[in-house]
Amino acid sequence: MATTISPLAPKEYATLPPIAGVKLATAEAGIRYKNRTDVLLATFDKGTTVAGVFTKSKCPSAPVEWCRDNLKGGKVRALVVNSGNANAFTGKNGRDSTKLTASIASKSVGCKASEIFLASTGVIGEPLDATKFNRVMDGLVAGGKSDLWQEAAKAIMTTDTFPKVATATAKLGDATVTINGIAKGAGMIAPDMATMLSFIFTDAPLSASALQGLLSSGVEDTFNAVTIDGDTSTSDTLLAFATGAAAEYGAPAIARANDRRLVAFRKAFQAVLANLAEQVARDGEGARKLVEIIVEGAKTKRSARKIAMSIANSPLVKTAIAGEDANWGRVVMAVGKAGEPADRDKLSIWFGDTRVAHRGARDPDYDEKQVSAYMKNPEVTLRVGLGLGPGRDRVMTCDLTKAYVEINGDYRS
Amino acid sequence: MATTISPLAPKEYATLPPIAGVKLATAEAGIRYKNRTDVLLATFDKGTTVAGVFTKSKCPSAPVEWCRDNLKGGKVRALVVNSGNANAFTGKNGRDSTKLTASIASKSVGCKASEIFLASTGVIGEPLDATKFNRVMDGLVAGGKSDLWQEAAKAIMTTDTFPKVATATAKLGDATVTINGIAKGAGMIAPDMATMLSFIFTDAPLSASALQGLLSSGVEDTFNAVTIDGDTSTSDTLLAFATGAAAEYGAPAIARANDRRLVAFRKAFQAVLANLAEQVARDGEGARKLVEIIVEGAKTKRSARKIAMSIANSPLVKTAIAGEDANWGRVVMAVGKAGEPADRDKLSIWFGDTRVAHRGARDPDYDEKQVSAYMKNPEVTLRVGLGLGPGRDRVMTCDLTKAYVEINGDYRS
Repeated sequence: MATTISPLAPKEYATLPPIAGVKLATAEAGIRYKNRTDVLLATFDKGTTVAGVFTKSKCPSAPVEWCRDNLKGGKVRALVVNSGNANAFTGKNGRDSTKLTASIASKSVGCKASEIFLASTGVIGEPLDATKFNRVMDGLVAGGKSDLWQEAAKAIMTTDTFPKVATATAKLGDATVTINGIAKGAGMIAPDMATMLSFIFTDAPLSASALQGLLSSGVEDTFNAVTIDGDTSTSDTLLAFATGAAAEYGAPAIARANDRRLVAFRKAFQAVLANLAEQVARDGEGARKLVEIIVEGAKTKRSARKIAMSIANSPLVKTAIAGEDANWGRVVMAVGKAGEPADRDKLSIWFGDTRVAHRGARDPDYDEKQVSAYMKNPEVTLRVGLGLGPGRDRVMTCDLTKAYVEINGDYRS
Repeated sequence: MATTISPLAPKEYATLPPIAGVKLATAEAGIRYKNRTDVLLATFDKGTTVAGVFTKSKCPSAPVEWCRDNLKGGKVRALVVNSGNANAFTGKNGRDSTKLTASIASKSVGCKASEIFLASTGVIGEPLDATKFNRVMDGLVAGGKSDLWQEAAKAIMTTDTFPKVATATAKLGDATVTINGIAKGAGMIAPDMATMLSFIFTDAPLSASALQGLLSSGVEDTFNAVTIDGDTSTSDTLLAFATGAAAEYGAPAIARANDRRLVAFRKAFQAVLANLAEQVARDGEGARKLVEIIVEGAKTKRSARKIAMSIANSPLVKTAIAGEDANWGRVVMAVGKAGEPADRDKLSIWFGDTRVAHRGARDPDYDEKQVSAYMKNPEVTLRVGLGLGPGRDRVMTCDLTKAYVEINGDYRS
């Protein structure tokens, strides 16, 4: 784990309230790290539903495949997460290891193995010795608490520099329901670690289908709109759990994601996802600046997304921002290489509120000093106007610093 | 210009022979740099044909648009290249500037403006003052020489650390014809510079159509198979010129690229392109290692290319190589994110001759020490076997070092 907290970390951490039906526990299983927790167990009351979205990698980790397979059931009784070993690219051993982990947990919890969900983050290609869970599992199940959110977020960290937590409440019918979330960073994570994990918990009585609908649409403008280095983990996992406990205090059972009673809930759910996703960008490896990229006037939102991602993933744009340089020439380059409809002579670019380029040329009126001062901020907004249509999108990223290269390249020297 | 020559630079530069029908001259026009040449003029005898391939950027520079427009004619009398200013994203001013440059050159040479080809590299978004060519152009035309290849390659450099030249000969009919080439690096190039320029010259009597065919197919496995940082210039330009002078010493006139008499010529032409493209990779910004990436067993060559490029552009793979770490977990990640057909459990990975991963898991027999020693080499080969089909491809790249971030991010601090 990194010793210096990202300068972009939130000034204070949210305090997460209990979620009825959820218990949390952490332990030191010695997977890879010494003297820190590396296992998180969340147990759920009967009737808890589950939804998930996963990495699009063609080489997913064994736990990702395990979760995908068991998502069909829609039911969950426990989540086991370990840090230190990703159980990715581990062949048959990896599959055996997920089976064994689920078997150990299901015995302790007293449920089917298919009701155990798994996530692993850490080194790729090393066998994960799941027998290590044996000696901690009973204690984790027995010792579950409702207020361990911060500790839970810490147990799943790898090179993250701070734990990521978020919470919100919403009215559902006459009841107030709660949504808590934890996450660990993308980035990717040294030495071989490369994963975004996030888990969302609520007491709202949502069917697995409703929860999946909320999650799948919610991820688009939150976790899918964040990029650190354009690299995609074999293990990215976002799971949501709904205990349904709020039915006891008057929340209506919701079967479908398009139920109108979900308006407020959806907004709060989305806010938790957005908050966690932004924290992931704030903790990008070596990040010194949080960068918001807005693309407007594209033909479609999809086209705006592609252009925004082309800018956000450009090493030249990211190094320029690290150098506090409003280098709009590189932004033009990144727009041009995206391959999406763009008309050079209609293009405008802003850094903060200053328009630096307009209609295909440098804005003659822009004040270099003003822009230079703006670039010294820890949070920078870069806006591109294409002038072609109604498509708009926004992505979050961070700068590319020497610290990123150090973290990812120098650890053996 | 950088002061330290890349450690990957060729040990010695090729000596390029004259090409009948080509004269070269350089000058200091003071476009941006002081005390160095920044203009190259190549003049061609009447009857010289021209072919070109250009950046795929949707925001191309004014000279790129100028060349594209004039390529239809297939005839050329002069090439004007300047470094220091890319004349990109300069709006109407940029178009006027290309017109003025061509007009100045055409008057001095005595030809149509449409027979002047242009390329510019340097800062984006600054107006290019083409009147600066006025005072040097007559001298350039009068002072043309046939043996200035090294100087020509130097005049077009920006942050390149060494001039890039290559040469080859081939039999065409009973005659021996010559192919010379010069290039400047991709990378991209600080502060706003971002361009790969290359110019190929031959005395072979090739129609514009034959030359275009050779160039378009030749670029696929050479310049298009090199990546430094995945960023694409607004100005990338590769032009080829065939004077036809070899007709005088017995070379047959060739009308079509698929003419069987071109077999040897095509091979030599391709070798010059490949040599220059590799030199571009050797001079990637901050590069300390030249990296060859081979992907085999893909469904198709196109699929192999996509996977190879995904690996070559992965910041995590590139920083690992900078750290001399055979981090095959990151290679798995990059294969997985390419989105191309891949079966994790059939995947094998080699660093040099050592197979580190086999059939979806770490190779149990691999010797970490052997691989670590291999990674200290300045030239590293990384090979991926997908086990799915006959598709094979190869791309060249370099590592991602702190020097890259420094060159591209620190120049204002």
